[in-house]
Amino acid sequence: MADHVAPPARAGDRPDITGWSCPLPLADSPTIVMGHGGGGQMSGELVEHLFRPAFGGQGELTDSAVLPVGAARVAFSTDSFVVRPLFFPGGSIGDLAVNGTVNDLAMSGAVPLALSTAFIVEEGTALAELGRVATALGAAARAAGVAVVTGDTKVVDAGHGDRVYVTTTGVGLVREGADIRPGRARPGDVVLVSGEVGRHGVAVLSCREGLAFGTTVESDTAPLHGLVAAMLDTGVDVHVLRDPTRGGLAAALNEIARTAGVGVELVERQVPVPAPVVDACALLGLDPFYVANEGLLVAFVPPEGAEQVLAAMRARPEGTAAAVIGTVVDRHPGMVVARTGLGGTRVVDLPAGEQLPRIC
Amino acid sequence: MADHVAPPARAGDRPDITGWSCPLPLADSPTIVMGHGGGGQMSGELVEHLFRPAFGGQGELTDSAVLPVGAARVAFSTDSFVVRPLFFPGGSIGDLAVNGTVNDLAMSGAVPLALSTAFIVEEGTALAELGRVATALGAAARAAGVAVVTGDTKVVDAGHGDRVYVTTTGVGLVREGADIRPGRARPGDVVLVSGEVGRHGVAVLSCREGLAFGTTVESDTAPLHGLVAAMLDTGVDVHVLRDPTRGGLAAALNEIARTAGVGVELVERQVPVPAPVVDACALLGLDPFYVANEGLLVAFVPPEGAEQVLAAMRARPEGTAAAVIGTVVDRHPGMVVARTGLGGTRVVDLPAGEQLPRIC
Repeated sequence: MADHVAPPARAGDRPDITGWSCPLPLADSPTIVMGHGGGGQMSGELVEHLFRPAFGGQGELTDSAVLPVGAARVAFSTDSFVVRPLFFPGGSIGDLAVNGTVNDLAMSGAVPLALSTAFIVEEGTALAELGRVATALGAAARAAGVAVVTGDTKVVDAGHGDRVYVTTTGVGLVREGADIRPGRARPGDVVLVSGEVGRHGVAVLSCREGLAFGTTVESDTAPLHGLVAAMLDTGVDVHVLRDPTRGGLAAALNEIARTAGVGVELVERQVPVPAPVVDACALLGLDPFYVANEGLLVAFVPPEGAEQVLAAMRARPEGTAAAVIGTVVDRHPGMVVARTGLGGTRVVDLPAGEQLPRIC
Repeated sequence: MADHVAPPARAGDRPDITGWSCPLPLADSPTIVMGHGGGGQMSGELVEHLFRPAFGGQGELTDSAVLPVGAARVAFSTDSFVVRPLFFPGGSIGDLAVNGTVNDLAMSGAVPLALSTAFIVEEGTALAELGRVATALGAAARAAGVAVVTGDTKVVDAGHGDRVYVTTTGVGLVREGADIRPGRARPGDVVLVSGEVGRHGVAVLSCREGLAFGTTVESDTAPLHGLVAAMLDTGVDVHVLRDPTRGGLAAALNEIARTAGVGVELVERQVPVPAPVVDACALLGLDPFYVANEGLLVAFVPPEGAEQVLAAMRARPEGTAAAVIGTVVDRHPGMVVARTGLGGTRVVDLPAGEQLPRIC
C-alpha cells in the first residue's frame, strides 16, 4: 500500500479528494469485483454513482458520443480489451479490438474513419505473441476498411498485467439524417436481431475451460458497419441499434427499455440460438440471453419498415440469420419479458454482475 | 501458457500468424522488457518493426494523427497511463491522463474538443481509490476546459493489473493555417522550451523511492493548449511543437532531428533545470535531459519570430520560465549535441530504453 500514497494536502485549484466517500448503493461493496466490469447493473452503478459525478455530469457517457464538427457529426467511442485467452476459436483480442470499436460507432449510424490503439504489455511477454496480436489487429482493421492512424505502448512490470491489453478508440462520420439512439424506442417498434445469439461468450469460455461440445463454437466477431449501411439504405427510419456484447441480449434490451421508458416483449422461440450454444449453456448453467456477442446487433424499427429492413439484413452475409424477435410495448416500462414456448412469460432481468469475466 | 492457445488453422480471410517471426533488431530480445515502453530507441523499434508492418504501413503512427472532416482538420491522439504511484507530488494519474492527451493534440496546433476514458481496474481495488482517481481526472478535465464524453471500464483479476490503468483519447480541431510537425524543423530555427526541465520524473521517482531532497519537487503536469494558442496568436509560423514526456528532452529533440534530417545544437547552461532537480538527478545518477516532463513543450520557430514567441510564452503562467535553448543546424543531421559550460560539446543521444519505468 505504501506506494499508493494520498495526494499532498494543497490549497487552490486541486479538488479535495482525500475524503472521497462512496455513495450508495456501491458502498455495499467497498472494493472492485469482477462484476463491475460485466456490463450489467454493477457496471451501470459505477458509471452512475462514481464516474458521472467525478466527471461533472458532462454528457451521457454512452458507448459512443456524437460531436458536431462543422456541418458534420463525428462519432467517438473507446473500449479496452482484456479478453483471456488472447486467441480463441473464431478470433482474437485483435479482432475484438477492431470490431468492438467499429461496431460501437456503427450503432450510432457512423462509418468508421480511423482507429487508435493503446497497448499495455506485460514485461516478459514474448515479442512473437505481441506480434501475432498486432498482426491479427491489423488484418481485422483492413477487413473492416479502417486505418490505424495513431497509437501508444506502455510496459508494466511482470505480475501487473496479463501479456496484452489493448484499448482502441474510433472516430467515424455519422450518416446524414440518421438519429439512432436508445431513447428513440417506442411502442409498436419491431425488435430485430441480425444473427445467432451467444456464440462469442461460449467460444471464449469453452476455450478457457478446455471444454469440448462436439461442435466447436466459434466467436461471431465481425464488423457491422456494412450491415448497418444496408439497413439505412432502405430509407426506413431506424430508431435504435445496439450490439449486445457484455451482458448479452438481456443487458442491451434492458438498457434500451430503461432509457426509452418502454417495455420490450420477446418471443423466446424466435430468438435464433444455435444448437451448440444451447448445449454448452445447458452444461455450464448459462442463459444464452446473457452471453456476449461480438458480431451481432439488435435493431428497433417502426412496424411499417420492419419487413424491408429484415430483407436488407438477410441479403448480407452478416445478416443471413436475421430474425424478428419481439416488439416494444407500453406495458411494464423499463422491463423486458419473454414469452416462453409454453405460453407463459418470464422476466429477462438486467444481469447484476458478470457470468463470464474477461470475455472481451 | 495453456490459456493462450494458437488460433485454429483456417483457410480464407485470416492471416497466417502462427509463424510470426521477429525481424531484427528486435529479435535480440525475444521478450518485452520495460525499455520497450520507455519512449526511446526500443519503443521506436517496436513501432517500426512490429506495429507498422502489422498494421499495414498505414499512416505515420505518430503521437497525434490529423484527419480531414469536411473543411476541418480533426486531431486524434491516444495514450495509456500506468504511472505508479497513482498520486504523487503535484498530481495524479488523473491529471496525466487529461493533460497528456490534451498536450498531444496541442502539439499539432489543435484545441481539444472531447476526451474518452477507458479504465482497466484490478479486482480488489478500493472503490474510494478509483473514486479519487476519477475525481482528479474530472477536475483536470474541467481545468483544461474539455469534456469527458464517453468511456469504458474493464475489471481484471487480482494480480493482473495495478489498481488503475487509464487510457484517454482526445479529438481536437486543428487551428486554421497551422502546419506544425517534426518534419518542418529547418536550419536556422530557434529552439525554445516553455519552462523548467525534469520535474515530473523526479517527482514520481522521489515519491516511489521514499526519497527526500530537502525541497519537494512537484510534477509539472499541466494542459498546454492555452500556451500554444498564445504562441500561434503571434502570427509567427511555428514549425514544430513537442511535449518532451517519456525519454525527456533528449528523446523529443532526437526524434525531431531524425525526422527532419537536421542537427540540433543546445547550449547546456541555457536549459532551465531547477536546483532540486539537479540535486536529485545527481543523487540518482540521472541526466535531467532524459527525465520526463508533463507540462512542458519545446518549440522550433524561425529566427525572425523567436523573440515574439518567447515574449508570448513568458506572458502566460505556464511559460514564465520559457527560454531559448538552442538552434537547428545543417551539420550532423539527425543528431543532438550540447555545448557544455566548459566550451566543449557532448552528444545527447536518443535513450535506448527507460531510466524511469512507469512514470506516466
